[in-house]
Amino acid sequence: MKKHNFSAGPCILPQSVFKESSEAILNFNHSGLSILEISHRSKDFMAVMEEAQHLALDLLRLEDKGYKALFLQGGASTQFLMAAYNLLEKKAAYLNTGTWSSKAIKEAKLFGEVEEVASSKDKNFNYIPKNYSIPADADYLHCTSNNTIFGTQIKEFPTVNIPLVCDMSSDIFSRELDFSKFDLIYAGAQKNMGPAGTTLVVVKEDILGKVSRQIPSMLDYQVHIGKDSMFNTPPVFAVYTSMLTLRWIKQKGGIAGVQKLNEEKAALMYGEIDRNPLFEGFAALEDRSMMNATFNLKDEKLKDLFEDLAKVAHINGINGHRSVGGYRASMYNALPKESVEVLVNVMKELETQA
Amino acid sequence: MKKHNFSAGPCILPQSVFKESSEAILNFNHSGLSILEISHRSKDFMAVMEEAQHLALDLLRLEDKGYKALFLQGGASTQFLMAAYNLLEKKAAYLNTGTWSSKAIKEAKLFGEVEEVASSKDKNFNYIPKNYSIPADADYLHCTSNNTIFGTQIKEFPTVNIPLVCDMSSDIFSRELDFSKFDLIYAGAQKNMGPAGTTLVVVKEDILGKVSRQIPSMLDYQVHIGKDSMFNTPPVFAVYTSMLTLRWIKQKGGIAGVQKLNEEKAALMYGEIDRNPLFEGFAALEDRSMMNATFNLKDEKLKDLFEDLAKVAHINGINGHRSVGGYRASMYNALPKESVEVLVNVMKELETQA
Ligand SMILES: Cc1ncc(COP(=O)(O)O)c(C=O)c1O
Ligand SMILES: Cc1ncc(COP(=O)(O)O)c(C=O)c1O
Ligand SMILES: [Mg+2]
Ligand SMILES: [Mg+2]
Ligand SMILES: [Mg+2]
Ligand SMILES: [Mg+2]
Repeated sequence: MKKHNFSAGPCILPQSVFKESSEAILNFNHSGLSILEISHRSKDFMAVMEEAQHLALDLLRLEDKGYKALFLQGGASTQFLMAAYNLLEKKAAYLNTGTWSSKAIKEAKLFGEVEEVASSKDKNFNYIPKNYSIPADADYLHCTSNNTIFGTQIKEFPTVNIPLVCDMSSDIFSRELDFSKFDLIYAGAQKNMGPAGTTLVVVKEDILGKVSRQIPSMLDYQVHIGKDSMFNTPPVFAVYTSMLTLRWIKQKGGIAGVQKLNEEKAALMYGEIDRNPLFEGFAALEDRSMMNATFNLKDEKLKDLFEDLAKVAHINGINGHRSVGGYRASMYNALPKESVEVLVNVMKELETQA
Repeated sequence: MKKHNFSAGPCILPQSVFKESSEAILNFNHSGLSILEISHRSKDFMAVMEEAQHLALDLLRLEDKGYKALFLQGGASTQFLMAAYNLLEKKAAYLNTGTWSSKAIKEAKLFGEVEEVASSKDKNFNYIPKNYSIPADADYLHCTSNNTIFGTQIKEFPTVNIPLVCDMSSDIFSRELDFSKFDLIYAGAQKNMGPAGTTLVVVKEDILGKVSRQIPSMLDYQVHIGKDSMFNTPPVFAVYTSMLTLRWIKQKGGIAGVQKLNEEKAALMYGEIDRNPLFEGFAALEDRSMMNATFNLKDEKLKDLFEDLAKVAHINGINGHRSVGGYRASMYNALPKESVEVLVNVMKELETQA
């Protein structure tokens, strides 16, 4: 029995991607070889890496605009330090909207001064700060587009004259944005892009090479660019599966196509959270994430009944993160609308039975 | 038609591992979920990570001896810098036996003084230097157990009073050694251990915490140890597939079991290289690698015929690395003896036809 998987990441991917990647492990491209045993320098894999890079830039509409797409290892957590290693000469500005922003700030402090331009920590990160000022002399501004844990999302990005760096781990490829506003975008694959094990980095080349420190090869964006993301052995299978997922997004009509479905799912989900007297949302209304809906039961005594009903309905992964409690329904690109309908029905059923 | 895959890495894995990992993508542990969509914090994946760590230490006979096993990202190339970041306070000693040692030295130099204790660069790394002296005041000695590109392998490791660090990327789990001689062992998975995308680090805890510099979280062995290798999202599928491969080694009788087969394959291969008047080996006899046999045609004019015969026999991946030329037959644990027999027969056939 297939589950309705609301897991926050790693998370559900398109069923066609599971099927194709499973087959490629037995026989990749009719080569008589597994995708797991081919050389990363083989023609077949070079083509995969190229297509993945091309699709990423194409979907973001960043082709021929001075950007490079890299598929690295180490997760977004490694980007917390790489961004600073490559860009922070003296001072950087950080917007603190949650756990992941806070961790990015912690790593950046090892490399220079960090000015926190605003924080929503005062309300356990349930909103996105607005109207803050950004130091014009900062080397860059760093922000987190979607706060996976707290279920908030930046709807309007600040306009700045310094490089704009964004951790888009949990909402990349889910909604249209003017991506050319950003100079460095990074995202762990394991939400909208593929399995855990690779990290997409999209970087505008002209912001690089400006810090005075020496950068170890594996942490240097310019080194990876110089080798087209093949400086060392890439995570072959994770890149291949990401490429399949990017193809699937393209087939769905690109970001605009999946965005439409994401909006429908979010409307359904938040509609029920608001309508149903047993539940309340966690995040400020105007900052609600289209990806991760965080909500609570008003009456804790209904916990067991709600969770039993969800289990019977084959629902997986709705427990909230410990820093928020309650529930979190993650509705990434590949989650079918039907899964949201099932969850909404469970919420309605609880109302009937309670 | 299944190929005889002599690829230097990524490389052949056991057929049972291909089968099981392919199935787990469709339905992992009868959970109704793909291994690619489960949370890394799920009970099922935590069990995988634990078993992988346990098997690694068990096979190396390092359990209860103060070591920790970690499954990280970034490949052995990231270990070049992490080893130095975590251990190099003032000066480190490096043995230079090839391309990978040279790259490790390059990264270490960013962190302190590097004393190259010996090098075989004078003969294009076709041998292992012996009888060199090691500075007693170095923070550690770094060596490369098997030189994937040149086909040499250290048979006897130096006895030292300083921490011994070893890049075992291309021969880990292939032969019995007294692994307790080493204080830090690292290896990219993509040879004897699994697919590309994870790196095994086995570290003796008491050598850590002695440098004065601050270490970014993702580069700090102590941080990863503190979180049992789950500080951030691990490369779930690569760890799972490595765990399956380690189970397979265990079933084969552990390292002793696979070593026996590796010795047979190497004897067969080098036997033919030496017997056949058309071929000659590249590496010094006493330093020949059991994993990567490097050899050349004496008469370059036979190149096309040899390669055609190999192709017809479904042989894959025997081209030598550009720094050596000629051929390289990589005979990792999972390569069946039958594949070596097929290659040897092609070499004999060439002798007949030439
Ligand atoms: C927004 C965001 N940033 C960073 C991370 C950390 O990513 P990783 O585990 O790949 O290092 C996560 C993980 O969930 C995330 O959601
Ligand atoms: C001995 C050795 N060390 C290091 C490396 C580099 O490993 P990675 O590509 O995983 O960074 C290799 C790759 O083949 C190798 O054979
Ligand atoms: Mg967050
Ligand atoms: Mg309500
Ligand atoms: Mg080498
Ligand atoms: Mg000969």
